[in-house]
Amino acid sequence: MDNSPARGTRDLLPATVAVRDHVLATITAVYHRYGYHRIETPALEGIERLSGGQGGENEKLIYRVLRRGLDEAVAADTQLKDLVDLGLRYDLTVPLTRFYGNNHATLPTPFRSFQVGPVWRAERPQKGRYRQFHQCDIDMIGEESVLAEVELIEATTEALAATGLTGTTVRVSDRRFLTALADAAGVPEAEQGGLFITLDKLDKVGWDGVRAELVSRGLDTGKVDGLQATISGLTGVDPAKLGAALADAVPGLPDEVVADLAQTADALAAVSATRPVSWEFDPTLVRGMGYYTGQIFEVTHPASSGSVAGGGRYDRLVGRSLGREVPACGFSIGFERIVDLIDAAPTGEAVAVLYEADVPLTAVTARARALRAEGVSASPVRRRGKFGAQLGRLKEWGFTSFTQVRADDQGDPELRSLVED
Amino acid sequence: MDNSPARGTRDLLPATVAVRDHVLATITAVYHRYGYHRIETPALEGIERLSGGQGGENEKLIYRVLRRGLDEAVAADTQLKDLVDLGLRYDLTVPLTRFYGNNHATLPTPFRSFQVGPVWRAERPQKGRYRQFHQCDIDMIGEESVLAEVELIEATTEALAATGLTGTTVRVSDRRFLTALADAAGVPEAEQGGLFITLDKLDKVGWDGVRAELVSRGLDTGKVDGLQATISGLTGVDPAKLGAALADAVPGLPDEVVADLAQTADALAAVSATRPVSWEFDPTLVRGMGYYTGQIFEVTHPASSGSVAGGGRYDRLVGRSLGREVPACGFSIGFERIVDLIDAAPTGEAVAVLYEADVPLTAVTARARALRAEGVSASPVRRRGKFGAQLGRLKEWGFTSFTQVRADDQGDPELRSLVED
Repeated sequence: MDNSPARGTRDLLPATVAVRDHVLATITAVYHRYGYHRIETPALEGIERLSGGQGGENEKLIYRVLRRGLDEAVAADTQLKDLVDLGLRYDLTVPLTRFYGNNHATLPTPFRSFQVGPVWRAERPQKGRYRQFHQCDIDMIGEESVLAEVELIEATTEALAATGLTGTTVRVSDRRFLTALADAAGVPEAEQGGLFITLDKLDKVGWDGVRAELVSRGLDTGKVDGLQATISGLTGVDPAKLGAALADAVPGLPDEVVADLAQTADALAAVSATRPVSWEFDPTLVRGMGYYTGQIFEVTHPASSGSVAGGGRYDRLVGRSLGREVPACGFSIGFERIVDLIDAAPTGEAVAVLYEADVPLTAVTARARALRAEGVSASPVRRRGKFGAQLGRLKEWGFTSFTQVRADDQGDPELRSLVED
Repeated sequence: MDNSPARGTRDLLPATVAVRDHVLATITAVYHRYGYHRIETPALEGIERLSGGQGGENEKLIYRVLRRGLDEAVAADTQLKDLVDLGLRYDLTVPLTRFYGNNHATLPTPFRSFQVGPVWRAERPQKGRYRQFHQCDIDMIGEESVLAEVELIEATTEALAATGLTGTTVRVSDRRFLTALADAAGVPEAEQGGLFITLDKLDKVGWDGVRAELVSRGLDTGKVDGLQATISGLTGVDPAKLGAALADAVPGLPDEVVADLAQTADALAAVSATRPVSWEFDPTLVRGMGYYTGQIFEVTHPASSGSVAGGGRYDRLVGRSLGREVPACGFSIGFERIVDLIDAAPTGEAVAVLYEADVPLTAVTARARALRAEGVSASPVRRRGKFGAQLGRLKEWGFTSFTQVRADDQGDPELRSLVED
């Protein structure tokens, strides 16, 4: 019988779960200290909501769930969509906006929440990517000032550092900056999406690649020159002078965008006085999701080729569920990527209580009970086969020490280490 | 726009999640001390496995998932089953047996695991019952002796007590006892299932009801008299004399069943010497699932009408996945029921950092940062509306104290309590 999990999914063994729980507990402790509370939404959402356009390409990857009570024989001329009413969520943002719409009357303003849980995407299986994986989102809903951006950046980089990922760099940009940049270069609104997609590839294809793609998109070389000059001029700019540099380089950039970015720069400078947070303005940062409306950010770490976290402001998304505009900002930690970067969870002492078949059960359980009363993890294991080989297996299984209960020697409290060799 | 969660499911707000996390952390700490490790399996399983008969009535409640890549237009003469390859799990036992089959080569013997996670059942929605709910299972696979039963009973009652549910009673019986009882009463094997279902109703319908139903099932009154006499004679029997009473009352009861129950009685007596564990042999305990093969148990608590935990030995179930017999025993805590019985999670101090719009952002974040550095949860909240009304809202939202940052008075570190009135 094939006992593999469903294609593209996986079983999580104890050592893996221990790392995941450790990372989760670490992140949770930091987010609690910032006053964020965990919420949960169901795995299943209405199929119309999941297919409403908010999910972008992910909407093609939905696991669709049959209505209940259907006839087994499908009637002629049936469309699949007639059979489906629910789907498994592909992210935690669609459920969050529904959650806020459903519960806003009892929630604080601003509402600080975080979510950790599985999402499902029917992607082509490939190494290291799974069809069920965890996302870890922190969001502030109802805060219009950059307090939200600054707090989320501070909390997220602190959470990452607490898991062991120090030395991160935060890259910051603003969707409104990108729009003003495109406007100033004379790129019509309808073509700006394409421009941003191309710009996003700069770190992969370099300026030569970006120039070639922009020209093939119909941009004349003069405009491309102008764009490249503006972007290059803003790359690596001293954060303290960011506001002035932006106002100077991008005509038409609204004052409030400059002020917001300058304020974020100030606040991050204050953070880095107490904790090593490295950050930079990155004029080529785009972020995929179309719902961002203001500042956007990504966190990179030397040990990971992709980003380890990303987010931004999405002021109009909650309004679609609620029927009135509510400002919002969020940050998503790449939970699976972080877990892959962490070697092992810290472990306590774990004692195997070895016993021969002739030892009374009550003597075995009494020894285990005495150890547990001291706060030690203890599990009876029957003596089997060669002693040395069994000790090797115990060590492999994660036991750190053992003790023996014999029929003639029930009181021996000696613990022998399995790990100090 | 309707923002309700999918029918029969629910959103979990921060206060609810806090209780759930507290209960889970409490149970986890106890199970870790017994050397049990958490594992995880995917929410989706192959539909054939979910429909293999192991799930009993639950197999009628499966959320079925469409294959990917199907044509939108369903071909004529299609059966629903042709469109489905996966389903959402309805329990954690089916996935556990698959998990063990898939991973047994690297797992300890005995393998001690626990699982906590959502399962899905498309039940008719009713108050207090949800279509997505959590199960919490602890299992020992590979242990043939009653060490398994005793340890699981001890661990589970300790976990329940740690959550605050002291005063539980463990009811113990044995499927092999029930079979011998039915054999001795002359009930043919094919009708024993019906007998057990009727017997299970004793606490609801009393002996009159049970007698009437057994007679309507075709049992003659003489056999019913014999059954009632045997069961009544074994009810409330002194645990220390259980073995002798059983051997005496039920001719044909195998010696090993008597010995196992006597050993369990001894071991539980030892447990109750250090911790108040009340238990009794209950000859009318049946438990629904057909896969149990030996001792079965349930835990009741005065505050709950149903049982708060239940389980038993299922020696032949793992073998169906693995292809060779492996003894196993499990206990399931009624997680949702426990959570409903717990009022609130213990909370720490949560400070609202109130600020007027004219206060520089860096002053606000600095104050919050200073509080967090002391390990306190702190969140900036803008001053809005009448002061007293806002303090009332802060308290409602779970803040325990507040502090104010003013433009002219940034250094005031005073904390004012919201909860001491």
